[in-house]
Amino acid sequence: MTNGSPSETPSAGVVDLLGLLAYAELVSFFRLSGDAGLAPDLAAKGELAGAAAAEYRHYRLLHDRLTEMGVDPEAAMEPFVEPLDAWHARTEPKNWLESLVKTYVGDGISGDFYRVVAKVADARTAELVDGAVDDDERAEVIGARVRAAVEADPKLAGPLSLWARRLVGEALSQAQLVAAHRPELAALVAAGAERAGEGSGRESDLAAVSRLFAGLTEAHSARLAAMGLST
Amino acid sequence: MTNGSPSETPSAGVVDLLGLLAYAELVSFFRLSGDAGLAPDLAAKGELAGAAAAEYRHYRLLHDRLTEMGVDPEAAMEPFVEPLDAWHARTEPKNWLESLVKTYVGDGISGDFYRVVAKVADARTAELVDGAVDDDERAEVIGARVRAAVEADPKLAGPLSLWARRLVGEALSQAQLVAAHRPELAALVAAGAERAGEGSGRESDLAAVSRLFAGLTEAHSARLAAMGLST
Repeated sequence: MTNGSPSETPSAGVVDLLGLLAYAELVSFFRLSGDAGLAPDLAAKGELAGAAAAEYRHYRLLHDRLTEMGVDPEAAMEPFVEPLDAWHARTEPKNWLESLVKTYVGDGISGDFYRVVAKVADARTAELVDGAVDDDERAEVIGARVRAAVEADPKLAGPLSLWARRLVGEALSQAQLVAAHRPELAALVAAGAERAGEGSGRESDLAAVSRLFAGLTEAHSARLAAMGLST
Repeated sequence: MTNGSPSETPSAGVVDLLGLLAYAELVSFFRLSGDAGLAPDLAAKGELAGAAAAEYRHYRLLHDRLTEMGVDPEAAMEPFVEPLDAWHARTEPKNWLESLVKTYVGDGISGDFYRVVAKVADARTAELVDGAVDDDERAEVIGARVRAAVEADPKLAGPLSLWARRLVGEALSQAQLVAAHRPELAALVAAGAERAGEGSGRESDLAAVSRLFAGLTEAHSARLAAMGLST
């Protein structure tokens, strides 16, 4: 497996990773913007726009990096349009709190995933991916808001916990499809899992991917607890 | 009329101007993002997101300036939510070319308007407003695209010209309502019109505002011609 080692020429797995992340940021931009109607007031709308604009900046960096590598960015994103669109279509927030939980959960679990995988990509890719997913300040603000809402009205905890469970379940389902269809990306993810101590090094790529996902859901549980929700 | 002279303490007219512009940028951000479904491909979606992100940056500057002036930004924006939302609700693009024409026409006419009015505000406000509306490069790109589409299919010219006419008609209608309800802003606009040579200095504020709008529609005609459309 050569995908895991840093190199000058990007591997198919790295192109997939950047394409996946670029489209994830772009669609996240549009989905966040689309939640404007759920925002309770003008200040919340402004913050929502700010969160979306941050996603756009990340998209732009990844897009430019693909161009710089001599790769057509749109072609690199294309394989991930269907699974990411499907995830968003299956997880449309019905209210403002669901939108906040989606942002928090989505940012958290995808951030963990990208960080693990970036470790086995080339140094520039790793740096770029780290920059694109590093937004702990926003996560803290959102987490604190959900927690305050749940503390003020404890009967929200049940439905929001179920919502968070659905968000992750749908994400894992789409991720398994992606892993099955993109072997180079799956190999890169498996290498990342091994490096992170989640894989045994003897199992198949798909098994290693599943094991990595299992690890990600543990961090997810900690984030739920931070919002006053349960798994 | 003291609104027209630069001063340390912002006049009610200047607060209105910044509030209007801030909300215009914020709602424009969301409206542009909302046109994602009309974009023909991934590259166009990325550009659309970029245009929206630029609106967000402008919103942020204006929002921060209001805060810096000791004004509650949301309170300053509030009076303009209804007319701007009404304009957007009455001018929902049905396809990608209508979305492009709306951006071009909307940016153009509002840019001319803000530039005229900013001239009679304090220097920092004027500088900020100029920065927020100065995006000729994007306008050129959009104008060239519409022109190419119309040249390729000349029968588009008629419906798109009617569309542009409706965009401006609805904008002037909402602007007249705003001028009627916000006398300090109307006075500032009248002072701007006078400075720009569009007002006689002896007429009422509302008449001066109308005269300024008449001047703006002339520049609008030139922009339509640049897109291969007619008035």
